[in-house]
Amino acid sequence: MVKKIPVEKKVLSENDRIAGEIRSRLKDLGLLSLNLVSSPGSGKTTLLEKTLEALSEKLKMVLIAGDVQTDNDAARLVKAGGTDVHPIMTRGACHLDANMVNKVLVETSLDGADLLIIENVGNLVCPSSYDLGEDGKVVFVSVTEGDDKPLKYPGMFRRSSLMIVSKLDLLPHCQFDVATVIENARTINNDIEVIQLSSFTGDGMDEWYRWLKQNIQDKKQAAK
Amino acid sequence: MVKKIPVEKKVLSENDRIAGEIRSRLKDLGLLSLNLVSSPGSGKTTLLEKTLEALSEKLKMVLIAGDVQTDNDAARLVKAGGTDVHPIMTRGACHLDANMVNKVLVETSLDGADLLIIENVGNLVCPSSYDLGEDGKVVFVSVTEGDDKPLKYPGMFRRSSLMIVSKLDLLPHCQFDVATVIENARTINNDIEVIQLSSFTGDGMDEWYRWLKQNIQDKKQAAK
Repeated sequence: MVKKIPVEKKVLSENDRIAGEIRSRLKDLGLLSLNLVSSPGSGKTTLLEKTLEALSEKLKMVLIAGDVQTDNDAARLVKAGGTDVHPIMTRGACHLDANMVNKVLVETSLDGADLLIIENVGNLVCPSSYDLGEDGKVVFVSVTEGDDKPLKYPGMFRRSSLMIVSKLDLLPHCQFDVATVIENARTINNDIEVIQLSSFTGDGMDEWYRWLKQNIQDKKQAAK
Repeated sequence: MVKKIPVEKKVLSENDRIAGEIRSRLKDLGLLSLNLVSSPGSGKTTLLEKTLEALSEKLKMVLIAGDVQTDNDAARLVKAGGTDVHPIMTRGACHLDANMVNKVLVETSLDGADLLIIENVGNLVCPSSYDLGEDGKVVFVSVTEGDDKPLKYPGMFRRSSLMIVSKLDLLPHCQFDVATVIENARTINNDIEVIQLSSFTGDGMDEWYRWLKQNIQDKKQAAK
């Protein structure tokens, strides 16, 4: 087991090199890119379905949907109106890496795109170590999970720009305190932004759309 | 990245060696051991709390609670009546391994114990690769997650003996079909047993207790 750490470091530094290339290309394009991370079943795909339904006529979105196995999520996104959806099956790997994402991006025209969203494998640990060249990670916590998740998985919350508290419609049925999860997240990462929403009822979705549009605009401005 | 696979193989074979030692010791003792695996927030700890409240006077349980960070789960289990609870903080690692478990077990008296339960780190991918010397893995799927989880994370479901469909009280509020999740799990693993329950309302808990008692008895019989 002695060799494990240096080899992991080598893998991570190769990952960072490719992520840097992705970041550079996206910067030149002024294209906002987000890396969506969470436990399995926290509502990433459902939020993207609703986002496509609401915004796909106004925004040109490129979507990458990562899963260990199946392209179920990608199929759902196409059905919801996604016209530029790319599944990545990791076939056992517990996270996306920059090389997997880059292989998709080099074959994809990004001209005129407003937004690149990468839906990572459902896993609150490993994806936090792999930079994909994104502008920010968006971490989901569903109210059906515990409100101590930020403390138990600090790496992910430390590296995320936005926390989405999802499935807000289930809050009356769950022992989950929204103020506590926010407090816990800010203990780990004082700068993390927070949006509470329910993709099912639509509560909070306008705030998410505003956040997206503002960040798209800021990224485009910075490229000029 | 070329070296990664051989090193992982070496780590895994060392893990398997230690897991074999644990398994051998537990076999001699006739002590049933279970490895609880799931997404974060699927209800592993809550089920254990209820199990302690119901059975700790009748069964001597040794509990190991793994988390990336914090000993919150272990503290909850002690509060629920656990007298032999051992936290393992992995400090960044995405799974328990046999060495971590063995370090606890060599310092723990297992005399007279009926049941060893290891609550793994919440992660549906990586813990599936690490044998902990257990008799069986118990995989949780909460009804707030998608019913396609077995297809998306096949490794874990292939290697599990029992699937617990948890948070059954939330079913009326979720788009989740129990028959579908069972069908999907059995597509991956035809032998997997299934128990549906709610730790909150108590529905299905008797079936879980019966399953535990039967398997404890079978293990003891086999050691005679």
